[in-house]
Amino acid sequence: MKAVRLHRYGENPKVEDVAEPELTHPLDVIVRIGGAGLCRTDLHIVEGQWKEKSGVTLPYTLGHENAGWVDAVGAAVDHVAVGDAVIVHPLVTCGLCHACRAGNDMHCSDSAFPGISTDGGFAELLKTNARAVVRLDDGLAPADVAALADAGLTAYHAAKKAIPLLYPGTRAVVIGAGGLGHIGVQALKALTAAEVIVVDRSPEALKLAESLGADHTVVADGSETEAVKDLTGGLGAEVILDFVGEGGAIESGIAMLRRAGSYFVIGYGGTLNVPAIDIISTEINFIGNLVGTYNDLVELMVLAARGQVNLHTATYPLDAFGDALADLDGGRLRGRGILIPATA
Amino acid sequence: MKAVRLHRYGENPKVEDVAEPELTHPLDVIVRIGGAGLCRTDLHIVEGQWKEKSGVTLPYTLGHENAGWVDAVGAAVDHVAVGDAVIVHPLVTCGLCHACRAGNDMHCSDSAFPGISTDGGFAELLKTNARAVVRLDDGLAPADVAALADAGLTAYHAAKKAIPLLYPGTRAVVIGAGGLGHIGVQALKALTAAEVIVVDRSPEALKLAESLGADHTVVADGSETEAVKDLTGGLGAEVILDFVGEGGAIESGIAMLRRAGSYFVIGYGGTLNVPAIDIISTEINFIGNLVGTYNDLVELMVLAARGQVNLHTATYPLDAFGDALADLDGGRLRGRGILIPATA
Amino acid sequence: MKAVRLHRYGENPKVEDVAEPELTHPLDVIVRIGGAGLCRTDLHIVEGQWKEKSGVTLPYTLGHENAGWVDAVGAAVDHVAVGDAVIVHPLVTCGLCHACRAGNDMHCSDSAFPGISTDGGFAELLKTNARAVVRLDDGLAPADVAALADAGLTAYHAAKKAIPLLYPGTRAVVIGAGGLGHIGVQALKALTAAEVIVVDRSPEALKLAESLGADHTVVADGSETEAVKDLTGGLGAEVILDFVGEGGAIESGIAMLRRAGSYFVIGYGGTLNVPAIDIISTEINFIGNLVGTYNDLVELMVLAARGQVNLHTATYPLDAFGDALADLDGGRLRGRGILIPATA
Amino acid sequence: MKAVRLHRYGENPKVEDVAEPELTHPLDVIVRIGGAGLCRTDLHIVEGQWKEKSGVTLPYTLGHENAGWVDAVGAAVDHVAVGDAVIVHPLVTCGLCHACRAGNDMHCSDSAFPGISTDGGFAELLKTNARAVVRLDDGLAPADVAALADAGLTAYHAAKKAIPLLYPGTRAVVIGAGGLGHIGVQALKALTAAEVIVVDRSPEALKLAESLGADHTVVADGSETEAVKDLTGGLGAEVILDFVGEGGAIESGIAMLRRAGSYFVIGYGGTLNVPAIDIISTEINFIGNLVGTYNDLVELMVLAARGQVNLHTATYPLDAFGDALADLDGGRLRGRGILIPATA
Repeated sequence: MKAVRLHRYGENPKVEDVAEPELTHPLDVIVRIGGAGLCRTDLHIVEGQWKEKSGVTLPYTLGHENAGWVDAVGAAVDHVAVGDAVIVHPLVTCGLCHACRAGNDMHCSDSAFPGISTDGGFAELLKTNARAVVRLDDGLAPADVAALADAGLTAYHAAKKAIPLLYPGTRAVVIGAGGLGHIGVQALKALTAAEVIVVDRSPEALKLAESLGADHTVVADGSETEAVKDLTGGLGAEVILDFVGEGGAIESGIAMLRRAGSYFVIGYGGTLNVPAIDIISTEINFIGNLVGTYNDLVELMVLAARGQVNLHTATYPLDAFGDALADLDGGRLRGRGILIPATA
Repeated sequence: MKAVRLHRYGENPKVEDVAEPELTHPLDVIVRIGGAGLCRTDLHIVEGQWKEKSGVTLPYTLGHENAGWVDAVGAAVDHVAVGDAVIVHPLVTCGLCHACRAGNDMHCSDSAFPGISTDGGFAELLKTNARAVVRLDDGLAPADVAALADAGLTAYHAAKKAIPLLYPGTRAVVIGAGGLGHIGVQALKALTAAEVIVVDRSPEALKLAESLGADHTVVADGSETEAVKDLTGGLGAEVILDFVGEGGAIESGIAMLRRAGSYFVIGYGGTLNVPAIDIISTEINFIGNLVGTYNDLVELMVLAARGQVNLHTATYPLDAFGDALADLDGGRLRGRGILIPATA
Repeated sequence: MKAVRLHRYGENPKVEDVAEPELTHPLDVIVRIGGAGLCRTDLHIVEGQWKEKSGVTLPYTLGHENAGWVDAVGAAVDHVAVGDAVIVHPLVTCGLCHACRAGNDMHCSDSAFPGISTDGGFAELLKTNARAVVRLDDGLAPADVAALADAGLTAYHAAKKAIPLLYPGTRAVVIGAGGLGHIGVQALKALTAAEVIVVDRSPEALKLAESLGADHTVVADGSETEAVKDLTGGLGAEVILDFVGEGGAIESGIAMLRRAGSYFVIGYGGTLNVPAIDIISTEINFIGNLVGTYNDLVELMVLAARGQVNLHTATYPLDAFGDALADLDGGRLRGRGILIPATA
Repeated sequence: MKAVRLHRYGENPKVEDVAEPELTHPLDVIVRIGGAGLCRTDLHIVEGQWKEKSGVTLPYTLGHENAGWVDAVGAAVDHVAVGDAVIVHPLVTCGLCHACRAGNDMHCSDSAFPGISTDGGFAELLKTNARAVVRLDDGLAPADVAALADAGLTAYHAAKKAIPLLYPGTRAVVIGAGGLGHIGVQALKALTAAEVIVVDRSPEALKLAESLGADHTVVADGSETEAVKDLTGGLGAEVILDFVGEGGAIESGIAMLRRAGSYFVIGYGGTLNVPAIDIISTEINFIGNLVGTYNDLVELMVLAARGQVNLHTATYPLDAFGDALADLDGGRLRGRGILIPATA
């Protein structure tokens, strides 16, 4: 089958022929990929940023945001059947460690992360396991929801963790209304009654955010901290969700945070740098966020099926991976880029 | 009356005569101070570290850790009477803002912090209000519990916030077994079934920690991260309570933190400096801590009355303030230094 | 001034002249009543159902759902000024007990409940205190929001407690779409992404519920349990909010509850009667609900100001109290009846 | 192999020869039973109380509280090995439904309950699955901990759910210090700083409770409600854990409950009968409890390994099942009865 493989850090991955994955464990599931989201993390992987954290051996197949149809199942799998449309939770987990038993799939002590640490979904077939597949509602097509598997899941997970902080009268600032952020806006509006303020450099992204329910939008032109202060009675926001995490976003984001507020770190690239006295004198919190639980993904699919979370996507055939990557890197991609390795 | 007043940053405060405070509001309470704790924060104030955050006008009276006997009450106060032994919550709060109405006294939008931003308790009399006083159980003497008003409250507050994270089988690392930390150890043992690991440079402090219930002690001699990893199956601890916050404690503390763990920032002086990718790839949290709620103080008094929290103290008459400060600064103080401005 | 006074249980209250209330405590606030909601509880009081629980001495003034304008304030009140439009939290609380300090105003150990246990708001003036008044947003008129002070607050409080149970994909059943229930529907839609199923005997009430956002409506004609089972895959709903609490509602409501579900008891009159084995074998919960906190009321005013919670009301002058009561008792009242004792 | 089988409701089960269980699924685990707890529920099963709820087909093997050594494992099991000492979670769960994915094993939508709904552990071998086995610490013997698998798990689960309610200064009343209750006392003392008050008819049981850490004991002789009121300032307790649930325990227990308190229903047999007005006017809660999660059992094993939870047991060989049952029914059993079908 065809797959997009990374051979060397710093070099563009290539589309090539590889062997098809095979069932080797009774809980294995093989998915024919109908949509695989392209993500800024893919750029970071190519650059080598994840080299040590993933520990993957090159070459391997990229693609960590996948949906498709069940192609084959192991002997012990009976909750999905061949032909079922599914979205794939990004982690292949053991189901038996304390984290898995508490529902925290992303902290499984014996997990794999296809597309990061093993072969991913920029290919006709992906091997995952029974614990990773969520059956799709009839109204949902794999290519339309694929990007919810990781980008959407991460945004939903962070928004869900913020619910107890976001009672009526509070404000959530979403920094960055791109691939993750524009889902974050929708998740916050669906899950809470908080006012949502969106900050982005791009007026176009802000327009999209507004159409998705943002209560206020602020151009990140250097005056954004001031603007958010003005919108919050001079006090700052109870919750910041930072989907950017670099290029000055963290510094200006912290300055927008209210006393006793919580800063959700989601985007990365930059560094958190805060004197301890500033953390204790206002009792603020910094909350890490890593994809989400299996149930988070199930819940997000409910919102998607109801039309409460919508994705803006641009599709490419698998062969056009190079174009997609170039468009993403060059800022020409509107919405999320989706590769289409196979069809129903 | 006599009071310890700071006239200039960088210069030692002086004991001098000042006018007694007077009741001016129906909810005012004046307390005759039977014990006032001396704290590293007093040194920081003298050095000028709090100059901008407090905005206080010099000269003023230090002392933010107070207990004593009710000396006079305003017209609308009827839950305490003259002569009652009380411990004083560090903040004078409004009782009407959203934070106060949610029980979060330390985030009152209209508060004063005697000893930090107004006249404090290194004096025969302290003016506070009805919302700040907690009546003491018969068995408790003001001089014995004064240091629980701030140091103890802060340690208890942090330990209490960590309860949901500390189920049996988890570990809490206490960095620094000094004035706050040795109360933190006792609070953790009283409130949870977690294993408590204490890290300190001083073997004497570790001995004290052990006698207070610490399950393991580790000398902070550069190998402490390794030692904590060994005690936690190589994974690190679910919770770190950092009572030091400077001099390398933060860096080595973060290295002890387990995936999905929470780092409680309590001590200050240093800077938190963490790449965002490290925060998101393990989904760790940094939790600010600032004194505690009124109810936290009430609960801590329950533990004190039962003997589940004990303080090690050295007392000084008010006139000997200079000696006390010198002993604290010179590392000669064993336990917490308590000034005794007045007696029953 | 004129007031509606109850002289004897079982006899209709009368409109008569009484002395105006006076400021006697520095925290007192006197409110000129611009709107006072009439409630089924007023009927229950007249019938004598609350005789023992309230312990009130007759005669006294009814009316526990009040809004108006500040008419006079005690010496220690400075967060509201004469002329301010306010809604009145139903309880006059001490602010100093453990419950008050935790924000649980309704469990104050030293409270009064005007209209239940002391003189209420069916009068030109009501005496309450500083802790009970919430300033109204410019767009809100006392007569329009008065019924939110108790009916609305109770519904909001229950809905808010249910938030953690109501993730996307879950269902909340609202039993009774009357004075409280129709606010409950709006609160659930504003605060959660759950599906809301409304059950009521009246097709008209169901129509209103639908217009307020109910996802499904079910006529309570004896087949309602079956209907709810059909809407929930045969499993029942995760949350039931029972605003009726009598006449068979409890029995049919429990039958609609899903394994591990929670039943919120709000309406009253009937009796909860469940074998313990049924509670433990499915691990279900019964949750009591009593008005709400001060902050709940503040948050509800935010939703009202934004138009996310709307009330349907019919107004009466104070003199027409008899008509209002007769309309309520006779089922002729559409929406909530509001007495108008005074104007701005 | 030998097994204790129930052939007809109302008739005593018999020890007889049956076929050994066989591995049929890759995740199956067969356990050689080293200890199987005898429980009042076994009496209730024989009486027919569970006939409809379990839906089991007779004859079948009783025994739902099991520990032993792994005897055989399916092809996909690698987290335990033959010979490992294990305790067995009472439910065989699917691991894939929403409840399992949230960690709530006891609400699995596709579970079996050996000893209740399928063949249990009063036999030399028990068939369960990979998700049910918890490896035992070296210091723990199956026969010593078997009763923690269900009785202990249930008590721990309820105590753990009560943690947020039990801050210092609160009281938990344990009704019934028998098989479950005496573990409940130990769990409460290990997990919280609340005062524990134990109520039981038997002075001997109260003596045991005292030795396990109970702060107060009260004889249930009709004056127990009064006694608990006296111990709680006339207000009642914040939390009641009712391990009896019949014979008047519920009625007197509810009378001991404080305003805003929570009543944990654990024992069964009786009926909860409360007017709705009593539930809403004090805002009390009734919380169902059903065994516990897998992680609860792991945590309980931590407490057992540390000696913080100890069981009082009397052992019987499998052949002596009839004697054990007679001793339990006749009230001659001190502590928990444990059958020993096999040895290491």
